Amino acid sequence: MVETISDIGEFGLIRRIRSLLAAEGIRPKRVVVGIGDDAASFLPRSGYELLVTCDSMVEGRHYPPGFIGGFDLGRRAMTSNISDIGAMGGMPLYALVSLGLRGDAPVSEVEDLYRGFLAELNPLRASVVGGNLTDSGDGMFIDITLIGEAPKGKVVRRNGARPGDVILVTGYPGRAAAGLQLLLSKPNDARLSGDPLVRAYAVPSHRALVGQAAARTGYVTAMIDTSDGLAGDLSHICEESGVGADLFKEMVPLDGALANAAALLGLDPYDLILGASDDYELIITCKEHHVPALQSIAGAQAVPLTEVGRITDGRGVSLVLPDGERRSLPCARWDHFRPASSKSSGSPSSPVSRP
Amino acid sequence: MVETISDIGEFGLIRRIRSLLAAEGIRPKRVVVGIGDDAASFLPRSGYELLVTCDSMVEGRHYPPGFIGGFDLGRRAMTSNISDIGAMGGMPLYALVSLGLRGDAPVSEVEDLYRGFLAELNPLRASVVGGNLTDSGDGMFIDITLIGEAPKGKVVRRNGARPGDVILVTGYPGRAAAGLQLLLSKPNDARLSGDPLVRAYAVPSHRALVGQAAARTGYVTAMIDTSDGLAGDLSHICEESGVGADLFKEMVPLDGALANAAALLGLDPYDLILGASDDYELIITCKEHHVPALQSIAGAQAVPLTEVGRITDGRGVSLVLPDGERRSLPCARWDHFRPASSKSSGSPSSPVSRP
Repeated sequence: MVETISDIGEFGLIRRIRSLLAAEGIRPKRVVVGIGDDAASFLPRSGYELLVTCDSMVEGRHYPPGFIGGFDLGRRAMTSNISDIGAMGGMPLYALVSLGLRGDAPVSEVEDLYRGFLAELNPLRASVVGGNLTDSGDGMFIDITLIGEAPKGKVVRRNGARPGDVILVTGYPGRAAAGLQLLLSKPNDARLSGDPLVRAYAVPSHRALVGQAAARTGYVTAMIDTSDGLAGDLSHICEESGVGADLFKEMVPLDGALANAAALLGLDPYDLILGASDDYELIITCKEHHVPALQSIAGAQAVPLTEVGRITDGRGVSLVLPDGERRSLPCARWDHFRPASSKSSGSPSSPVSRP
Repeated sequence: MVETISDIGEFGLIRRIRSLLAAEGIRPKRVVVGIGDDAASFLPRSGYELLVTCDSMVEGRHYPPGFIGGFDLGRRAMTSNISDIGAMGGMPLYALVSLGLRGDAPVSEVEDLYRGFLAELNPLRASVVGGNLTDSGDGMFIDITLIGEAPKGKVVRRNGARPGDVILVTGYPGRAAAGLQLLLSKPNDARLSGDPLVRAYAVPSHRALVGQAAARTGYVTAMIDTSDGLAGDLSHICEESGVGADLFKEMVPLDGALANAAALLGLDPYDLILGASDDYELIITCKEHHVPALQSIAGAQAVPLTEVGRITDGRGVSLVLPDGERRSLPCARWDHFRPASSKSSGSPSSPVSRP
């Protein structure tokens, strides 16, 4: 018999989570009250700003049920929050996890989920300090609030990009989008679970350490993660900074596996790269003479940081083709309530998609 | 035509929420980055501990759809979080609101929800600094993370109650449970919406200001809010403090309207008072000679603070009848995944219930 949540009840489950965290998690720094009271409490570090973000994942909306196990799901949900803290130049400290669960779900699934959270938090010396459990009826949701810190005055925003700034991007955006398309094209092919693009979708990597190190230099004028897609998130920088952006197509990094998958699927690889994807890469803008320093910081962490374009005094994001032709990318970002708008960028639509 | 969320999209809705908060909310203190970036950031106050809590409400689980409008729902969801901060002796500062919404829901409903949040936050000079919007498929969920602060060393926990301590409770627990039973007994009676017990269910009050003032005295040995019910939350104090508790039936405050409603519904009023309810009263324990000072603090805020029992060196919570008979109350608290356990206290079960 599989032990379900209803078998042990809310308070039984809380006890199990507490012992799992005590045995496998990091003992949190500066925490006065942890899990098991009305609220958690901690002593903030003087000279530091606190950062706080939250992000949800809903079963059937942000991931196809059955495709992703509890452990990977936990990693993925935590990664999206870590990425947000990193994109401001911060280091994660404390997570609060609010779960909506079905009573008939196995307890082991929740424990797997928490092990997934810890797989992402432990290497950063961050921890889960609280949360909430609730019966969701059907479907599961995971809502995580993550608190981080950054030295006072070293937080990087979206609104500081200026005309002439170079646009850089970490890694190879679009790999997760390619992985999702592979999954959707062969939903029952178990061999796909080991495919590197499918892994990039199921367990994306964050670039928080690059974001943090880059922010400390003071060279970064604007930074954002690509959780709404490369072109979409660049358009957020443009809007908040009151500028435009030119992306040079031949400079945009094209991953070999992505190119192969696109050919196999009959898709334009640049639609995958520019459109909505589940990657958590970083877009960084800076003055031209600061590019080498930032590339060296990312390189020290084995993360490629590629120059892909320039901030302009125009409006919106344009893709500049090798022959000089410019194509406007119309606000190509993921919108939870208007999935069609992400198609306008040519990105493939999908029933389940993105945080 | 009613304007829906899909009509304006995620980013249109974010813009609407930002302007509503700018026009009607409190400009947050010490916030460096507010809504509209990857994370919010603020400068913590030196000499203060930070408190953080989260709580969810799920449509059809925590409230009957249709019974409660957006404004009241917003107040209620925020109140449950404010209450948790207050029960530790803290003052709320910043809220992050994560919403799961249907695309076909009216925009005005979301605006009403935010006005409900502000109705609770503004009087405390607290504000919404961030959040997340996601498509929930069907059903709505509200998950709020609330950050508060308390002077360093003045946070009150559940684990400090000692044998001989007096048990006090604010207000009249059970009123919300009575209101819910009235609603469920006459689901289509529109006149009920103005009933004070139904109002107590739909828009419960928190006692954060009493909790904060009481904590500052240093006299409170343990404190908790009654979100799991009077007996249930007292049992939390007992477990965490390693003590027992005697509740004296004739001292437990019996609200007149609750007594009338119980008679009308054929229920034992003490089942409503002791069992799961949606009240956010506070249970406070202290040494006997500190009772008058704490009562005077609560009285200054027009909140009754009634002595209802004693902490013992036993285990669990007992109800002591006027003739001296003692009845053990078996772990009578709300459990999301085992609603039946709340019935063991004799409290009426209900299809929708509690945060």
